Amino acid sequence: MNFAGVYHRPESEMAYLYTKDIMHIRLKTAKDDIAGVSLLHGDPYSLRSRPDLPKFYTQPTPMKKIHTDELFDYWQLAVTEPKKRLAYAFELIDQSNNCFIYSDQGFIQPTDQRKLNDANTYFRMPYFQDIDAFHAPKWVEQTVWYQIFPERFANGDSTNDPQDTKPWNPNEHPRRQDFYGGDLQGVINHLDYLKQLGVNGLYFNPIFKAPSNHKYDTQDYYQIDPHFGDAKLFKKLVEQAHQRGIRVMLDAVFNHIGDQSPMWQDVLKNGQDSKYADWFHINRFPVTYTPTDNFEFAKDATYDTFDYTPHMPKLNTANPKVQDWLLDIAGYWVREFDIDAWRLDVANEIDHHFWRRFHNEMLTLKDDFYILGEIWHSAQPWLNGDEFTGVMNYDYTGAIINHFIKHELSSQGLVDRLSHQLMLYRDQTNAMMFNVLDSHDTARIMTLANEDDQLVRQTLAFTFLQPGSPSIYYGTEYGMTGGNDPDCRKPMNWYPDAKAMAMHDFVRDLIKWRKEHWQLIAQGTIELTALNDNQGVVIKRRLNNQQLIAVFNTSSEPLQVTLAPFFAQGFSNGILLPKGFAVAALSE
Amino acid sequence: MNFAGVYHRPESEMAYLYTKDIMHIRLKTAKDDIAGVSLLHGDPYSLRSRPDLPKFYTQPTPMKKIHTDELFDYWQLAVTEPKKRLAYAFELIDQSNNCFIYSDQGFIQPTDQRKLNDANTYFRMPYFQDIDAFHAPKWVEQTVWYQIFPERFANGDSTNDPQDTKPWNPNEHPRRQDFYGGDLQGVINHLDYLKQLGVNGLYFNPIFKAPSNHKYDTQDYYQIDPHFGDAKLFKKLVEQAHQRGIRVMLDAVFNHIGDQSPMWQDVLKNGQDSKYADWFHINRFPVTYTPTDNFEFAKDATYDTFDYTPHMPKLNTANPKVQDWLLDIAGYWVREFDIDAWRLDVANEIDHHFWRRFHNEMLTLKDDFYILGEIWHSAQPWLNGDEFTGVMNYDYTGAIINHFIKHELSSQGLVDRLSHQLMLYRDQTNAMMFNVLDSHDTARIMTLANEDDQLVRQTLAFTFLQPGSPSIYYGTEYGMTGGNDPDCRKPMNWYPDAKAMAMHDFVRDLIKWRKEHWQLIAQGTIELTALNDNQGVVIKRRLNNQQLIAVFNTSSEPLQVTLAPFFAQGFSNGILLPKGFAVAALSE
Repeated sequence: MNFAGVYHRPESEMAYLYTKDIMHIRLKTAKDDIAGVSLLHGDPYSLRSRPDLPKFYTQPTPMKKIHTDELFDYWQLAVTEPKKRLAYAFELIDQSNNCFIYSDQGFIQPTDQRKLNDANTYFRMPYFQDIDAFHAPKWVEQTVWYQIFPERFANGDSTNDPQDTKPWNPNEHPRRQDFYGGDLQGVINHLDYLKQLGVNGLYFNPIFKAPSNHKYDTQDYYQIDPHFGDAKLFKKLVEQAHQRGIRVMLDAVFNHIGDQSPMWQDVLKNGQDSKYADWFHINRFPVTYTPTDNFEFAKDATYDTFDYTPHMPKLNTANPKVQDWLLDIAGYWVREFDIDAWRLDVANEIDHHFWRRFHNEMLTLKDDFYILGEIWHSAQPWLNGDEFTGVMNYDYTGAIINHFIKHELSSQGLVDRLSHQLMLYRDQTNAMMFNVLDSHDTARIMTLANEDDQLVRQTLAFTFLQPGSPSIYYGTEYGMTGGNDPDCRKPMNWYPDAKAMAMHDFVRDLIKWRKEHWQLIAQGTIELTALNDNQGVVIKRRLNNQQLIAVFNTSSEPLQVTLAPFFAQGFSNGILLPKGFAVAALSE
Repeated sequence: MNFAGVYHRPESEMAYLYTKDIMHIRLKTAKDDIAGVSLLHGDPYSLRSRPDLPKFYTQPTPMKKIHTDELFDYWQLAVTEPKKRLAYAFELIDQSNNCFIYSDQGFIQPTDQRKLNDANTYFRMPYFQDIDAFHAPKWVEQTVWYQIFPERFANGDSTNDPQDTKPWNPNEHPRRQDFYGGDLQGVINHLDYLKQLGVNGLYFNPIFKAPSNHKYDTQDYYQIDPHFGDAKLFKKLVEQAHQRGIRVMLDAVFNHIGDQSPMWQDVLKNGQDSKYADWFHINRFPVTYTPTDNFEFAKDATYDTFDYTPHMPKLNTANPKVQDWLLDIAGYWVREFDIDAWRLDVANEIDHHFWRRFHNEMLTLKDDFYILGEIWHSAQPWLNGDEFTGVMNYDYTGAIINHFIKHELSSQGLVDRLSHQLMLYRDQTNAMMFNVLDSHDTARIMTLANEDDQLVRQTLAFTFLQPGSPSIYYGTEYGMTGGNDPDCRKPMNWYPDAKAMAMHDFVRDLIKWRKEHWQLIAQGTIELTALNDNQGVVIKRRLNNQQLIAVFNTSSEPLQVTLAPFFAQGFSNGILLPKGFAVAALSE
């Protein structure tokens, strides 16, 4: 047995409340090392001299191997416990039929009655604390998002256009500083279009007052950018979206502020006497830096910044005044405008203390509020239930793109990577992830796929079968193209040709399907298998009586799929979807 | 390489701020599997196209193997980073000189330039967040505690004695229900004695109004038990202790309440109409249970209890009203009486949400407040800096007892277990642990040692060299004996004979030594080595120029200790302590 390959951690993604009365317990063991794992579990207090209570360690419950990645097998079991107190250990049987018990005291012999009888031997989830659990807002499980880059979605009011607004041309390659006049009225005008497409969540890139077209250089967090509209119009937008069952998410840039903000200008003017001096991380006065050829780069700023950008001084979120100010902003848009979610820019570089306050305050205002963090690396520390509801799932969708589109990852590599990612988070957390294939920050998926629409359809379909809410970047439904920023920010194509309309109808049908089967997709078990010879991947989802199996041929060769074995497993009706993949069977 | 044996977890005891600018990074690898580990670390933003910034991954920094337990080697490195943002990965060289990089993306080849250049490959500590760090109150590092069971320490006022108070007899075996008249005036009368002994922290078992002699069955958290004194007297005690440089810690029983409390009585009377119905975890009404022969046992209570004790209904700390009430109690004794610490009974069964509020409120009242949780199992979830400062270190001192006194654990087993425990927590957390060899809940160490005082001295000395604050249970300084509860609660022996005085002077000298060398003990590195053939254990501590080495012969045979090699290592003066162990060398 590879003892060093065995890992468990209580009160983490490896032991957590799934629902009020159900605890999920996971164990990680070295790949193919262990033949079987059972859980010994019960109420720790039952082990004391209580002759009428059974000894729980005599009653092992088999765990299920639910995932395997490059290095590990992952075992899981859902358990309950009438007294809501859980002591547990793992009984491992290796390939040579040796048996060991893995406990909070390390490995012990299954014959060690003294240790087995001692409650202090066991891992502990001391009480089922619903208040500490990760609570997933139900509506997110049913949501398909649509990302709007407001300056480029639709121009609904030409009277608020910026100077030198260019004519709306979806085929033009925009330059970094161009304006096309997109605005909130444009969004309102297309709410019925979006409803017909089927999306039920809108994620807006920043809409607050800022000089650039992307508005990440916020000047005033309390004001809608005048080129986009005003507070009244935004209120109307949210109301009309809500009337159509569409939720609204805004983008919050709280890690740093623009250097044109009144706060930073005051620091520049008054130095350490500024009342805002402690709003920032200033390492020494005077506040200064040496400009370089690159506007966005300075190596020697005397204050902390986002990246190396002297124009984006980092806010000191450990300062209660800064916290109060940012929380007032965050609350303002919820209280006054009834938004449903915040997407948090550079969320990992702000302290946990702040995010816990943020979580408490937003959830107090709206108990099913969705908090989405921008985090590019493993994000367990933010996803324990008291900070974010989900993160932008770049690593997950990145693996999908690397396999399906870039062919840099084999089908086995894809399965390994997705399995690994799924095991980083609680099951209910995985359902809250924000699955984006492309955005304002990346090349468009159609361009990455060399304009192979069938490949895009296949990739979208695979993504829509994953836990988490998928997000469609505006224009993807018409197969829009675009390279890296700013090329991915072309004006929306409101003049679709037949090919674009065909893609639109596919996306519409996919969204409809995802919403109809939300429960299976969000809550069902997931089983991923690589086909031999890097031919593709099979995904199975199950929830109670519902089951789905889909086979994706990601090779360049035809693939023979025999549906008979799946029918033998209880799948009933098979439906065929476009070339390259097949939803072989779906039964409920 | 045993890839499955490699483990790291950002933002945990494996990656944490040690001081404002110093991050500690740890890695766990399978024992003896890896020849060397280096850290690749730097500012993630430096990897983007910044030609003038060096590529940090070309500059590995060797990590040190600081501990080894039964299964793992533990590597550690302290790093800083001018931009306060840390990306890192581990370069591992195995015994056959193979090299792999272990990253947030799993194992990668050291030749994989594309991945090495991508900031998303690395583990991340995104920003040095002092507000999220574990802050250790300095005074605890310098504290030697003394545990007082008030009913048995000293009777300073016979006018408040309970009915049927027995004569003070330190040789008598108390029965469960006996009273001897100990009180707060008795403590006040002996503060000079305690100061001379050298202890500088008093941990009191409960002193609030309750019928029993142990007072764990609290009736009124706002009132000093009248047999112990009153609020005015307690205030005087704290003041006089503080005048002598002695801190005061009280015992808080917040998991459950006595069934004689007005709240529970109201529930019994009014059922689900009681305004306290939601103060508890009541699974169904009526509130009832079937009594058994055992007063403290009922299997079928319709409400959650501590253990199976129907007389201790569990409080619902998810209810904000209960939270507010308990926090007011906790704050009252800090605000009005200036206590310095709370010890939290059954702390693991109360939710984290409550403990975070508790932490915030206590620290707001007193910024160096000490919060000590009673947790018997691995306690990482409570020790991240926002809940407890330390826990009762039963597992650690239990291993010491198992080796030194019970001989159930070999010297190698001791080293493995202590090393494992040290690696469960941050370095600054280890210094906050509460190291008890015995207490009101266990047999006295002198009795466990079959009254071998030299063995007790040896065990105390070894314990005093460990990180964490040691605690002396009242009477240990006089070598008092006693079996399990209630025998360990004999009245204090105020009539020491010569043998008791000799022990007293040893304990006094040990305390003095510990306080003089607090910095080395609390902050120094620790190296534990088992002697061959289970002969004993060597401990080395180092901090800057201070170093200490102590050899403990825990076998029954004489042990030859040659000090020369230690002098060769830079140790200078050797001092000899009682039989069985030697502080071989101490240099500063």
